[in-house]
This record gives sequence, structure tokens and C-alpha cells, in this order.
Amino acid sequence: MSETSMDKIVSLCKRRGFVFQSSEIYGGLGSVWDYGPLGVELKKNLKDRWWNAMVRERENIEGLDSAILMHPDIWKASGHVDGFTDPLVDCRTCKNRFRADDERIKGVPGEESGQCPACGNKGVLTGARSFNLMFKTFMGPVEESASEIYLRPETAQGIYVNYVNVMQSSRQKLPFGIAQIGKAFRNEITPGNFIFRTREFEQMEMQFFVNPADDKKWFDYWREQRMEFHTSLGINPDKLRFHPHGPGELAHYAKEAEDVEYEFPFGWQEMEGIHNRTDFDLSRHMEHSGKKLEYRDPVSNERFIPYIIETSLGADRLMLAVLADAYAEEEVEGEKRVVLKLHPSVAPIKAGIFPLVKKDGMPELARKVQEELQKAMPVSYDISGSIGKRYRRQDETGTPFCVTIDGESVSAGSVTVRDRDTLKQDRVEIDNLKSYLVDRLL
Amino acid sequence: MSETSMDKIVSLCKRRGFVFQSSEIYGGLGSVWDYGPLGVELKKNLKDRWWNAMVRERENIEGLDSAILMHPDIWKASGHVDGFTDPLVDCRTCKNRFRADDERIKGVPGEESGQCPACGNKGVLTGARSFNLMFKTFMGPVEESASEIYLRPETAQGIYVNYVNVMQSSRQKLPFGIAQIGKAFRNEITPGNFIFRTREFEQMEMQFFVNPADDKKWFDYWREQRMEFHTSLGINPDKLRFHPHGPGELAHYAKEAEDVEYEFPFGWQEMEGIHNRTDFDLSRHMEHSGKKLEYRDPVSNERFIPYIIETSLGADRLMLAVLADAYAEEEVEGEKRVVLKLHPSVAPIKAGIFPLVKKDGMPELARKVQEELQKAMPVSYDISGSIGKRYRRQDETGTPFCVTIDGESVSAGSVTVRDRDTLKQDRVEIDNLKSYLVDRLL
Repeated sequence: MSETSMDKIVSLCKRRGFVFQSSEIYGGLGSVWDYGPLGVELKKNLKDRWWNAMVRERENIEGLDSAILMHPDIWKASGHVDGFTDPLVDCRTCKNRFRADDERIKGVPGEESGQCPACGNKGVLTGARSFNLMFKTFMGPVEESASEIYLRPETAQGIYVNYVNVMQSSRQKLPFGIAQIGKAFRNEITPGNFIFRTREFEQMEMQFFVNPADDKKWFDYWREQRMEFHTSLGINPDKLRFHPHGPGELAHYAKEAEDVEYEFPFGWQEMEGIHNRTDFDLSRHMEHSGKKLEYRDPVSNERFIPYIIETSLGADRLMLAVLADAYAEEEVEGEKRVVLKLHPSVAPIKAGIFPLVKKDGMPELARKVQEELQKAMPVSYDISGSIGKRYRRQDETGTPFCVTIDGESVSAGSVTVRDRDTLKQDRVEIDNLKSYLVDRLL
Repeated sequence: MSETSMDKIVSLCKRRGFVFQSSEIYGGLGSVWDYGPLGVELKKNLKDRWWNAMVRERENIEGLDSAILMHPDIWKASGHVDGFTDPLVDCRTCKNRFRADDERIKGVPGEESGQCPACGNKGVLTGARSFNLMFKTFMGPVEESASEIYLRPETAQGIYVNYVNVMQSSRQKLPFGIAQIGKAFRNEITPGNFIFRTREFEQMEMQFFVNPADDKKWFDYWREQRMEFHTSLGINPDKLRFHPHGPGELAHYAKEAEDVEYEFPFGWQEMEGIHNRTDFDLSRHMEHSGKKLEYRDPVSNERFIPYIIETSLGADRLMLAVLADAYAEEEVEGEKRVVLKLHPSVAPIKAGIFPLVKKDGMPELARKVQEELQKAMPVSYDISGSIGKRYRRQDETGTPFCVTIDGESVSAGSVTVRDRDTLKQDRVEIDNLKSYLVDRLL
């Protein structure tokens, strides 16, 4: 897939209402995006698939929804206040600002040789200075440093500080996990690639608490489980791969890490990370909060600080991967079509409902079919334009089935159901239509 | 219900994992709360009920998920930068700060008579000064006023600025609505009453765009629809009422407003607001953005700025109302029980699965029943303690059904299903168990 395809995806997203630029009528807000009618459904379906697979279908994982605002000491303990920074250099002449590793900078910033990529002057760049990537705000009515707090840069810490409360109230024992979906914020210097790297984003994280002796076993288990999840969404396995982190790539808290990468139109990039975070986070929170976060094994009476295996997936990245993977241009019946071959379980609309013509009782019957179906699934009624044109509209939005109400529907109570991918049409009794579709949506 | 009941609800919420104080191990963060394993499921079920009722089951309402971070000019246009303030007074002696309308203040702040409620000194209070309730943050690496932005204090504006994009991409015509669930933030001076008034909260808002000539009709329609929704959740109708706003109570943007109030343990309070916001917001955004936000009726060719009927519900308030309404203490078989009579559709766990004893194949069969059921609904396996004790645990968490696997289950393939509210037990074939439960969960 070429660069052009990315443009086409962005264009389709706007045209059909998957994703809009935030605050567009005000000229937009940099690297922040809003999800439109189809986007919110697609994203909700992806989040529900994850929640079901990680929480509802497992008895050793509990859900959590911790707040975005947290006690500021948490970010001291986690290392974010001191270490979550990017090095930046400023041009004293033109006032532009760059990442210190910007390849366009020539010479050494802070010295005579340093040359500004914007104004071209030499010796005008400051040395690299660290800027924290956390969004800062103030709780309470005045901006006093006592009430300075942060928007969380990751959801994980909300899990760690709640781990004893969750374990006790749910009567879990190790090994067990806590899963959470929620927003996080990073004041990125170089966001980009549409919804891939944004300042406000949504994470789907699961933290699995284990005996340190078992960490390798659980790391391998979750590595496999997570890849299985992505292929279960219908993502092409050839576009998925693991990227193990070498010693130089590992985060300060990690003993072992592997990314699940997807081949986006702009190259292979991380979609999800599986990390062995060891006892780093809980040890730091013990130290900073003064609270005991040790675990006592009820059988062996052994005491230890649990190791944590983390699976951290970006909801927006997953959605972009699913869209990119589903996007296709094909020739059908001599006509070009754009089609999103979304897995039926995540498609925003499950069925288009078309009366063949605007008379002979077809619209009325189609409305009845619509009313019956929409109790069970999102559907879309469409009466305007030729059937071919209506198919094209649904193809572009990834709707897996189109139901046409024709003369035989009125006379004999059956409809045609057209499959988005095979283009085959089945004739189905209206009485069986709902179960016919439900069976094909899993 | 007395004050004590509120304490009991808070205590149950912590004990059983519905709600925890945010950052508890660090001493807590004021008026911010985290949702535990049961709370996140209850809240998700309530949000899903709302989403289905407002979006998926209606063809004239589209969903949206706009970002928390928005262009700062939006809050100038909406009136929040200038007008979203609380008047505060400071004590120059003890440095405490109060709302100007604090009943404990004696005399007139700013004058000799003004007396500080904390230190008791006279003539030490400043006059009332306005403090904006929006959380401020900075986008980009430095705190320059050019990049000063706000955390949204309401989700509604995200809908207004996207209204043309949504309408065009979804091919809607007036009247139609846009619905959204999302976080909002207010730097409240006096938050309180558990999750009722918090600094970070979740809104479920729907904005319905209508011809100004039809505003009364649609206001009345949504007023009825919203009350119907609350009673459909099983909330006691005697604890629900409308509170129409008198002329003095109306917000600056509103022509007509009614609250849906619930009788919380701390009194009648607003849970949802239905507002006729007129063309105020779209007119202001037209003016500030310079973009045309008029609507042209495709039939009459009439041009106008749509009026907006808003339904604005607090997800956290709804959850508190549902919990308070469901909470009961009863005597059952000579024993006291605490029970949450939650509507089965929103209960976090749908069924407890109990092997009667730890032998004779019952645990193994119970595990099979659990595995089969948890593909369709959240269930909880419990083998510890007497059956009575296990019933009490599920009663407290609002689980509508308890399934006991006994000798007859092993020999004849049937189980007992105990109803939380009637306490009646049905014997059900294992093969029919899933459909038996599903039928009773709607």
C-alpha cells in the first residue's frame, strides 16, 4: 500500500463520518481528532470486543475505570515527572522550536556550528533542554503549585494504585489481571500520521500480576493471546509481526518487551506493547506512598512484590490498522468500488435496508423490516438512488449485508441478502432474517 | 431514606468494588473517584442502555465522540471563558477561601462587617472575585498563553462545532439529533455527595436540531422520552419528578428548561436536564468561527439557524440514583441481608454459579456451566462458604440469579435457579439455562 492510500483513508473517514478534525470550523486543533457517527460505532465495537475477550470471558481479570486526574505524587513515583521528557532546542533568532534529534539540524545545537533549519542562521540554537510531555493543570481555584496536577500520560498507573482495593473487593488471588479502557494525554512535539500519534488518545491496557518466578511463562502466554486477538478481528496476519525490544530499546521499567506491529501505509509501527514491567511500579508506589503492596501467597505463605506483565494497546491505532487493513478498491460489475472489508462484528452498520422501488408496498414493508432489526443491531434504511448506488454507499462504510425488499418480499415474505465480500445473494424468509444475520455477525 | 443510608451505600461501594477513592494509597484526590470491577460494569451497562435507546434504536440520531481538548475560541464563543465562574472570597488572615454565597459568612465580605468563618476575624475578607471553573492546560511544550487550552466543561460544544460535518456525512435532515458520551471537567469549589458532584465526570448528552417553529413540540417529546428511560431502568417512579426552571433559574442560553430530579438520600437533586437552548450556541459559533451554520430546508427552501433541544444526563449521577434506588436491607430466613435490586439488564454480574458441595462431580459440572454461560454474560463462580453465605454475597452485588449445581444436576442434568427478589427457585435443564437467563435479563 502506497502513501496515496493513507490519503484515501483520511478522505473516506471525513466523507463518510468516521473521523473529523477537532474544532475544524475554528481552523482545527493540532493532532486532535473527533470520531463521527460511523467512527464512534467502529471504535465502540473494537473496545467491546477487547473488553469481552479480556474481562467478561475470563474469570481472573477484573475491570477498572480510574479517573484521568490523579494525585501528583503518583507521577513522581512512576518516574514520569523526572523522566518523561523530550529534548528540545530553540532558535534565538526566529523563535522556532525543534526536537534535538531533528535530522534537519546541522552542526551542534548550543555551539557555533549549530544551524537553524528554519531561518538558516548559525550559532543561534540553544543547547538541548528537557520538556516534560505531561499536560499540566491546576486543581482548586488558583494556580498554586500545591494544586498542580497532570492529565495521566498512561492508564497503567491507575491500575497499580488500585491493585490492593481491586484484589480484596473481588477476592482474587495471583495470578490475576486488571483491565482498563480510558483516555491518556501526551504533549507530543511531533504527533502525526492521522490518528496514529495524537495528543489525546485512548488506551486499552491490562496489567497481569504474577509470582516473579512465573514471569516468563505469563509473558509468553499474553504475547500469544494478544496476537490471536488481532487476527480474530480479521486483520491480515501477513501485516502483523512481533518486534522484540533489544537491550538498548527497553524502557527503564522493563525486563522484556515485544511490540505487536502492523504494516501501516506509512510503514511497520507499534500497535500494542507486551511488557514485563517487573516489580518496578509497585516497589516505587510502596516507597512513595508508604503503603504495603506486597502479596502473601495463601498456600506457601511466601511474601513478594508481584511482577506485572502488561499488554498495552492503542484503541485509535487499532482502529487505524483495522481501517487500513479493510480498505480496498475493486472493480465490480464493470464499476469501481471502494469497500471496507470490516469484520462483521465490528462494522458500524450491520445491514442496509433497501426497498427496490418507492411503491407497491415495498417502502412500508422495508420500514417494518428495519424496525424489527434495529432492536438487535444498527441498520440503515436507504431509498435514494439505484440499488447499485446504494450498494456502493454501504460498501464504503463497511456494511456486511444489504437487504433488498422487492416484489417477492411483498407477495411471498422473502428478501434478498447480498454479501459485501462475495457479492452473492441469498433469498431469506423475513421471519428468519434476524437470526440469519445474527449468525453471520459473530 | 436517611443520611445513614448514604454512608451505607458508600461503604458497600468500597467493600464490594463499585467505587474507590482516587489515589487512595496517596491519601486520595479530592472529589475524584475510580470505578472498581463492579462499578465499571454497572456504569458500562447504563451507558449501553442509553446508547441503544438514543442512537442505535433511532434512525434520526447519530453518535459522536469528540475530543476533550478543543480549540480555545470555542469556549469564548460559548460564553464559558467570560461567564463560567463562581464568586469567591479570601480571608487575608488565615488564607482560607470560600464561595461568596457560603452561609457561614457573617456580614459583608470586603467591608468591616465581613467575618471569616474559619478564623473568626472581622474585616479580613476580600470582596467577591470571579474564578473560572474550567481546568486550564497548555498544548505545546511551553506555557505560553498562545497555547492555553481548556478541558471541556461540557460535551455539548463538541457536538455543535461538528454539526455540519455530522449532518452532511450521515445525510440527515432536520429534525435530527447527535448523541455523545464523554468526560467533562469542572474545577468545582464545593464538590461533594460522593459521585454526585465531582471535578471529573461523565456526561450523556443528546442535542436535537429542530426548526424553531417546532421547538415546543420537541421539548415536550424529549421530556417524556427521558422520563420513560429512567423508569425503564427500574427506578421507582415515586422518587422521580420534573422540576421546571422558573424565569430566574434559566441559564443564559435557555428559553425553557426542566430537570429530571431524583430523591437522593441527601434530597431531591437534578439528575438530567432538558433544555431548549434556542439558536444561541450555533449563532455564537457562526459569529466566532465565521462559518455558515444555517440550515436550508430542502422542501420549503426556508433558511434558519436550528434551535437545539438538549437532554443532558450525568452518567455518575444516574449510577448513584440507580444504586440508591436499588439498595435495601431485608430480613430473609431469619437473617439480615443487604440487597441491590438492580434491573437485570444493568446488573454487573448476571448469575452466580455455585456447586452445592466440593465433591461428587459438582465443581466440574459447575465449571462447565460457567464456561458455557460466560460467552453470553458476566457470571461469577463461587465455591466458598455455605450456599446462604454465597447468596448474601451475590445479593449485595445485585446479581439477579444464582444457579446451584447439586446432585440432581449431575444425575439428571438440571440446576436450581434462585431469583434475587422473589427468592423463588426454579429447576431448569442445563440445556435451557442460557436461554432461560437471557429471556429474563432484558
